[in-house]
Amino acid sequence: MVEYNSPALDQVFSAVADPTRRAILGMLARRPATVTEIARPFPVSLNAISKHIKTLERAGLVKREVVGREHHCRLEPRPLRRATAWLEHHQAFWEARLDALERHVAATQKRDPRRGGHPGQR
Amino acid sequence: MVEYNSPALDQVFSAVADPTRRAILGMLARRPATVTEIARPFPVSLNAISKHIKTLERAGLVKREVVGREHHCRLEPRPLRRATAWLEHHQAFWEARLDALERHVAATQKRDPRRGGHPGQR
Repeated sequence: MVEYNSPALDQVFSAVADPTRRAILGMLARRPATVTEIARPFPVSLNAISKHIKTLERAGLVKREVVGREHHCRLEPRPLRRATAWLEHHQAFWEARLDALERHVAATQKRDPRRGGHPGQR
Repeated sequence: MVEYNSPALDQVFSAVADPTRRAILGMLARRPATVTEIARPFPVSLNAISKHIKTLERAGLVKREVVGREHHCRLEPRPLRRATAWLEHHQAFWEARLDALERHVAATQKRDPRRGGHPGQR
Protein backbone atom coordinates (compact mmCIF):
# COMPACT_ATOMS: atom_id res chain seq x y z
CA MET A 1 0.00 0.00 0.00
CA VAL A 2 1.47 3.33 -1.06
CA GLU A 3 0.54 6.14 1.31
CA TYR A 4 -0.19 9.72 0.31
CA ASN A 5 -1.19 11.37 3.53
CA SER A 6 1.65 10.30 5.77
CA PRO A 7 3.26 12.77 8.20
CA ALA A 8 6.19 10.32 8.38
CA LEU A 9 6.77 10.61 4.61
CA ASP A 10 6.50 14.43 4.88
CA GLN A 11 9.26 14.45 7.51
CA VAL A 12 11.54 12.04 5.65
CA PHE A 13 11.32 13.96 2.36
CA SER A 14 11.79 17.31 4.19
CA ALA A 15 14.81 15.84 6.00
CA VAL A 16 16.55 14.76 2.79
CA ALA A 17 15.71 18.05 1.00
CA ASP A 18 18.85 19.63 2.49
CA PRO A 19 22.37 18.94 1.10
CA THR A 20 24.06 18.97 4.54
CA ARG A 21 21.56 16.46 5.93
CA ARG A 22 22.02 14.25 2.84
CA ALA A 23 25.81 14.39 3.40
CA ILE A 24 25.35 13.43 7.09
CA LEU A 25 23.23 10.43 6.07
CA GLY A 26 25.92 9.52 3.54
CA MET A 27 28.54 9.52 6.33
CA LEU A 28 26.38 7.48 8.68
CA ALA A 29 25.60 4.98 5.91
CA ARG A 30 29.30 4.06 6.04
CA ARG A 31 29.60 3.82 9.84
CA PRO A 32 28.12 5.21 13.08
CA ALA A 33 29.80 8.42 14.33
CA THR A 34 29.73 10.90 17.21
CA VAL A 35 28.27 14.38 16.68
CA THR A 36 31.82 15.83 16.83
CA GLU A 37 33.04 13.40 14.14
CA ILE A 38 30.03 14.20 11.96
CA ALA A 39 30.65 17.96 12.28
CA ARG A 40 34.39 17.84 11.45
CA PRO A 41 34.27 17.96 7.60
CA PHE A 42 31.59 20.68 7.46
CA PRO A 43 32.43 24.40 7.26
CA VAL A 44 29.59 25.28 9.65
CA SER A 45 29.25 25.44 13.46
CA LEU A 46 28.78 22.39 15.68
CA ASN A 47 25.47 23.96 16.69
CA ALA A 48 24.27 24.05 13.07
CA ILE A 49 25.21 20.38 12.59
CA SER A 50 23.49 19.50 15.86
CA LYS A 51 20.26 21.09 14.57
CA HIS A 52 20.50 19.09 11.33
CA ILE A 53 20.97 15.87 13.36
CA LYS A 54 17.88 16.73 15.45
CA THR A 55 15.85 17.11 12.23
CA LEU A 56 17.09 13.70 11.07
CA GLU A 57 16.18 12.22 14.49
CA ARG A 58 12.64 13.65 14.30
CA ALA A 59 12.25 12.03 10.87
CA GLY A 60 13.36 8.72 12.45
CA LEU A 61 16.43 8.51 10.20
CA VAL A 62 19.07 8.79 12.94
CA LYS A 63 19.23 7.18 16.39
CA ARG A 64 21.36 8.86 19.06
CA GLU A 65 22.88 7.10 22.08
CA VAL A 66 24.56 9.12 24.83
CA VAL A 67 27.68 7.41 26.24
CA GLY A 68 29.30 9.62 28.89
CA ARG A 69 29.81 12.98 27.20
CA GLU A 70 29.67 11.58 23.68
CA HIS A 71 26.61 11.39 21.47
CA HIS A 72 26.85 8.36 19.16
CA CYS A 73 24.67 8.53 16.06
CA ARG A 74 23.70 5.72 13.75
CA LEU A 75 21.50 5.44 10.75
CA GLU A 76 17.99 4.00 10.93
CA PRO A 77 17.12 2.85 7.39
CA ARG A 78 13.44 1.89 7.81
CA PRO A 79 11.80 5.30 7.12
CA LEU A 80 13.92 5.64 3.97
CA ARG A 81 12.46 2.38 2.68
CA ARG A 82 8.96 3.87 2.75
CA ALA A 83 10.16 6.97 0.90
CA THR A 84 11.91 4.82 -1.70
CA ALA A 85 8.76 2.68 -2.05
CA TRP A 86 6.67 5.80 -2.75
CA LEU A 87 9.08 7.03 -5.45
CA GLU A 88 9.55 3.57 -7.02
CA HIS A 89 5.78 3.01 -7.22
CA HIS A 90 5.34 6.20 -9.23
CA GLN A 91 8.42 5.64 -11.30
CA ALA A 92 7.08 2.22 -12.32
CA PHE A 93 3.85 3.92 -13.47
CA TRP A 94 5.69 6.55 -15.51
CA GLU A 95 8.17 4.15 -17.05
CA ALA A 96 5.23 1.98 -18.18
CA ARG A 97 3.54 5.03 -19.71
CA LEU A 98 6.73 6.12 -21.49
CA ASP A 99 7.31 2.56 -22.77
CA ALA A 100 3.75 2.45 -24.14
CA LEU A 101 4.28 5.81 -25.89
CA GLU A 102 7.57 4.62 -27.43
CA ARG A 103 5.93 1.40 -28.65
CA HIS A 104 3.08 3.44 -30.16
CA VAL A 105 5.56 5.73 -32.00
CA ALA A 106 7.60 2.74 -33.24
CA ALA A 107 4.44 0.97 -34.48
CA THR A 108 3.24 4.14 -36.26
CA GLN A 109 6.62 4.56 -37.98
CA LYS A 110 6.63 0.91 -39.08
CA ARG A 111 3.17 1.19 -40.65
CA ASP A 112 4.02 4.45 -42.41
CA PRO A 113 7.73 5.46 -42.34
CA ARG A 114 6.89 9.00 -43.65
CA ARG A 115 5.08 9.67 -40.35
CA GLY A 116 8.22 9.38 -38.23
CA GLY A 117 9.41 11.92 -35.67
CA HIS A 118 7.59 13.37 -32.73
CA PRO A 119 3.97 12.20 -32.39
CA GLY A 120 2.92 15.77 -31.63
CA GLN A 121 4.17 17.06 -35.02
CA ARG A 122 1.29 15.69 -37.07
CA MET B 1 27.58 9.29 -9.57
CA VAL B 2 25.41 10.14 -6.58
CA GLU B 3 25.20 13.88 -5.90
CA TYR B 4 25.00 15.50 -2.49
CA ASN B 5 25.03 19.19 -3.26
CA SER B 6 22.34 19.40 -5.86
CA PRO B 7 19.78 22.23 -5.80
CA ALA B 8 17.66 20.07 -8.13
CA LEU B 9 17.51 17.26 -5.54
CA ASP B 10 16.66 19.82 -2.83
CA GLN B 11 13.70 21.03 -4.88
CA VAL B 12 12.46 17.54 -5.77
CA PHE B 13 12.55 16.30 -2.17
CA SER B 14 10.91 19.55 -0.93
CA ALA B 15 8.22 19.16 -3.60
CA VAL B 16 7.30 15.62 -2.55
CA ALA B 17 7.40 16.49 1.19
CA ASP B 18 3.77 17.68 0.98
CA PRO B 19 0.81 15.23 0.90
CA THR B 20 -1.27 17.35 -1.55
CA ARG B 21 1.65 17.56 -3.97
CA ARG B 22 2.24 13.80 -3.68
CA ALA B 23 -1.46 13.24 -4.45
CA ILE B 24 -1.25 15.54 -7.51
CA LEU B 25 1.77 13.59 -8.79
CA GLY B 26 -0.21 10.37 -8.17
CA MET B 27 -3.07 11.71 -10.34
CA LEU B 28 -0.75 12.85 -13.14
CA ALA B 29 1.07 9.50 -13.09
CA ARG B 30 -2.21 8.00 -14.34
CA ARG B 31 -2.92 10.59 -17.04
CA PRO B 32 -2.34 14.28 -17.91
CA ALA B 33 -5.00 16.66 -16.57
CA THR B 34 -6.02 20.32 -16.59
CA VAL B 35 -5.54 22.44 -13.45
CA THR B 36 -9.35 22.43 -12.93
CA GLU B 37 -9.47 18.62 -13.15
CA ILE B 38 -6.55 18.31 -10.73
CA ALA B 39 -8.23 20.64 -8.21
CA ARG B 40 -11.66 18.88 -8.27
CA PRO B 41 -11.08 16.13 -5.63
CA PHE B 42 -9.28 18.41 -3.16
CA PRO B 43 -11.11 20.27 -0.37
CA VAL B 44 -8.97 23.39 -0.90
CA SER B 45 -9.20 26.42 -3.23
CA LEU B 46 -8.17 26.37 -6.90
CA ASN B 47 -5.61 29.02 -5.94
CA ALA B 48 -4.00 26.69 -3.35
CA ILE B 49 -3.79 23.87 -5.91
CA SER B 50 -2.34 26.28 -8.46
CA LYS B 51 0.44 27.17 -5.99
CA HIS B 52 1.22 23.49 -5.42
CA ILE B 53 1.40 22.93 -9.19
CA LYS B 54 3.81 25.88 -9.50
CA THR B 55 6.06 24.29 -6.85
CA LEU B 56 6.00 21.01 -8.81
CA GLU B 57 6.82 22.93 -12.01
CA ARG B 58 9.81 24.67 -10.37
CA ALA B 59 11.09 21.23 -9.28
CA GLY B 60 10.78 20.11 -12.92
CA LEU B 61 8.20 17.43 -12.03
CA VAL B 62 5.27 18.91 -13.94
CA LYS B 63 5.12 20.49 -17.40
CA ARG B 64 2.27 22.88 -18.20
CA GLU B 65 0.93 23.64 -21.67
CA VAL B 66 -1.59 26.43 -22.17
CA VAL B 67 -4.25 25.59 -24.79
CA GLY B 68 -6.76 28.43 -25.07
CA ARG B 69 -7.99 29.02 -21.52
CA GLU B 70 -7.00 25.59 -20.29
CA HIS B 71 -3.75 24.70 -18.57
CA HIS B 72 -2.81 21.10 -19.36
CA CYS B 73 -0.39 19.49 -16.92
CA ARG B 74 1.64 16.36 -17.40
CA LEU B 75 4.21 14.58 -15.35
CA GLU B 76 7.91 14.85 -16.09
CA PRO B 77 9.52 11.74 -14.53
CA ARG B 78 13.25 12.51 -15.01
CA PRO B 79 13.91 14.52 -11.80
CA LEU B 80 12.22 11.76 -9.78
CA ARG B 81 14.71 9.26 -11.20
CA ARG B 82 17.61 11.20 -9.65
CA ALA B 83 15.84 11.34 -6.29
CA THR B 84 15.13 7.60 -6.44
CA ALA B 85 18.77 6.95 -7.40
CA TRP B 86 19.97 8.88 -4.33
CA LEU B 87 17.67 6.92 -1.98
CA GLU B 88 18.41 3.54 -3.59
CA HIS B 89 22.18 4.13 -3.38
CA HIS B 90 21.97 4.68 0.38
CA GLN B 91 19.47 1.92 0.89
CA ALA B 92 21.86 -0.52 -0.84
CA PHE B 93 24.59 0.56 1.60
CA TRP B 94 22.38 0.09 4.65
CA GLU B 95 20.93 -3.22 3.54
CA ALA B 96 24.49 -4.50 3.03
CA ARG B 97 25.43 -3.33 6.55
CA LEU B 98 22.33 -4.93 8.08
CA ASP B 99 22.98 -8.19 6.18
CA ALA B 100 26.57 -8.26 7.47
CA LEU B 101 25.33 -7.71 11.04
CA GLU B 102 22.77 -10.52 10.73
CA ARG B 103 25.40 -12.90 9.33
CA HIS B 104 27.72 -11.98 12.22
CA VAL B 105 24.97 -12.68 14.80
CA ALA B 106 24.06 -15.99 13.10
CA ALA B 107 27.73 -17.07 13.01
CA THR B 108 28.20 -16.16 16.71
CA GLN B 109 25.09 -18.14 17.70
CA LYS B 110 26.28 -21.18 15.67
CA ARG B 111 29.68 -21.18 17.41
CA ASP B 112 28.16 -20.77 20.87
CA PRO B 113 24.34 -21.14 21.08
CA ARG B 114 24.29 -19.73 24.68
CA ARG B 115 25.42 -16.36 23.26
CA GLY B 116 22.27 -15.87 21.19
CA GLY B 117 20.11 -12.79 21.21
CA HIS B 118 21.08 -9.19 20.64
CA PRO B 119 24.80 -8.63 20.01
CA GLY B 120 24.75 -5.61 22.31
CA GLN B 121 23.65 -7.67 25.32
CA ARG B 122 27.06 -9.19 26.05
